[in-house]
Amino acid sequence: MKTDLGSKVMLYPTPVLVVGTYDINGKPNAMTAAWGGVCCSDPPCVTISLRKATYTYGSLMEIKAYTVNVPGDQYVKIADYLGMVSGRNEDKFAVTGLTPVKSDFVNAPYISEFPLNLECNVVHIADLGLHTLFVGEIVNVKVDSEVYDNATKPLIEQIRPLIFAFDSRGYYSLGRKVGKAFSDGKTIGTQTMK
Amino acid sequence: MKTDLGSKVMLYPTPVLVVGTYDINGKPNAMTAAWGGVCCSDPPCVTISLRKATYTYGSLMEIKAYTVNVPGDQYVKIADYLGMVSGRNEDKFAVTGLTPVKSDFVNAPYISEFPLNLECNVVHIADLGLHTLFVGEIVNVKVDSEVYDNATKPLIEQIRPLIFAFDSRGYYSLGRKVGKAFSDGKTIGTQTMK
Repeated sequence: MKTDLGSKVMLYPTPVLVVGTYDINGKPNAMTAAWGGVCCSDPPCVTISLRKATYTYGSLMEIKAYTVNVPGDQYVKIADYLGMVSGRNEDKFAVTGLTPVKSDFVNAPYISEFPLNLECNVVHIADLGLHTLFVGEIVNVKVDSEVYDNATKPLIEQIRPLIFAFDSRGYYSLGRKVGKAFSDGKTIGTQTMK
Repeated sequence: MKTDLGSKVMLYPTPVLVVGTYDINGKPNAMTAAWGGVCCSDPPCVTISLRKATYTYGSLMEIKAYTVNVPGDQYVKIADYLGMVSGRNEDKFAVTGLTPVKSDFVNAPYISEFPLNLECNVVHIADLGLHTLFVGEIVNVKVDSEVYDNATKPLIEQIRPLIFAFDSRGYYSLGRKVGKAFSDGKTIGTQTMK
């Protein structure tokens, strides 16, 4: 049996992504967003959706470049803070002690302390309603060198990204590995008969 | 220190979403996609990105409706299978035993066995390169009634969605709750001084 909940947002997992931008005066800002994800493999692209009321929206419409910074789960409080306060009212880098570093690839700051940073130029914009969707082409990916150099563990297990549940307002950690992609499915269907 | 990896896809977490469609002859199909996510709260919308070579892409361009079905982690093998085989060559419902049910809201089948189903009409399409991005407006959300009626646990903990790591080809389970959104961040910054 199914229960119909009507027209609403409910999807799992959603990510915890911190969007880094410069405003028109070159001031860095960082804002947490959960509405986003990969949208193309070649060229590599990610989406980020922002409400028009946000300070980051205004900056992005002017500058057309951003970073996507993935915090590890030890940064859960800071990630939550970065999503609650507007850069219009508060210097979030000064408050948190996070370090904005100018990207060599795009006109946006990345967050030095966060282990994974995607440097993106906006290539497509769609006004969908409350949110505007920005497609960014990933021109470079930065990973903490100590993470990248540790070949004994997959990057995701070292980065420990947060998972967000919008409806229950929960942040979750990554669980254990439960399967191998492009592999486990081979036990099903005609492929086993080849 | 950061290591530059160049222009590539790397983002955590990405979801494991099974897209349900009818083809032009009304035959149901299901395909796993990890490139997708929420993109608007009002109207509620999700993105799904598909390669043009997929059977689902052709169906979606004709029918303009789809479901997003979220498997629990007990379906990891089936989810992997649904992403490896084309509906052009194989009846994936027959092979897996999954049940396609015609949505009352959109012209697409949802997967009865999967606990969360979003019923969507396509409202925006963007050809980005290898992948084409489809924005779907969520006109209804279905949840398994036994999950919805169990108020002692957040839905995400009952559904146990999969998390996908593209670069290491790993599927992961959901971990433990580590924070409360729109709450934990209040310990940081000027809000504490109010």
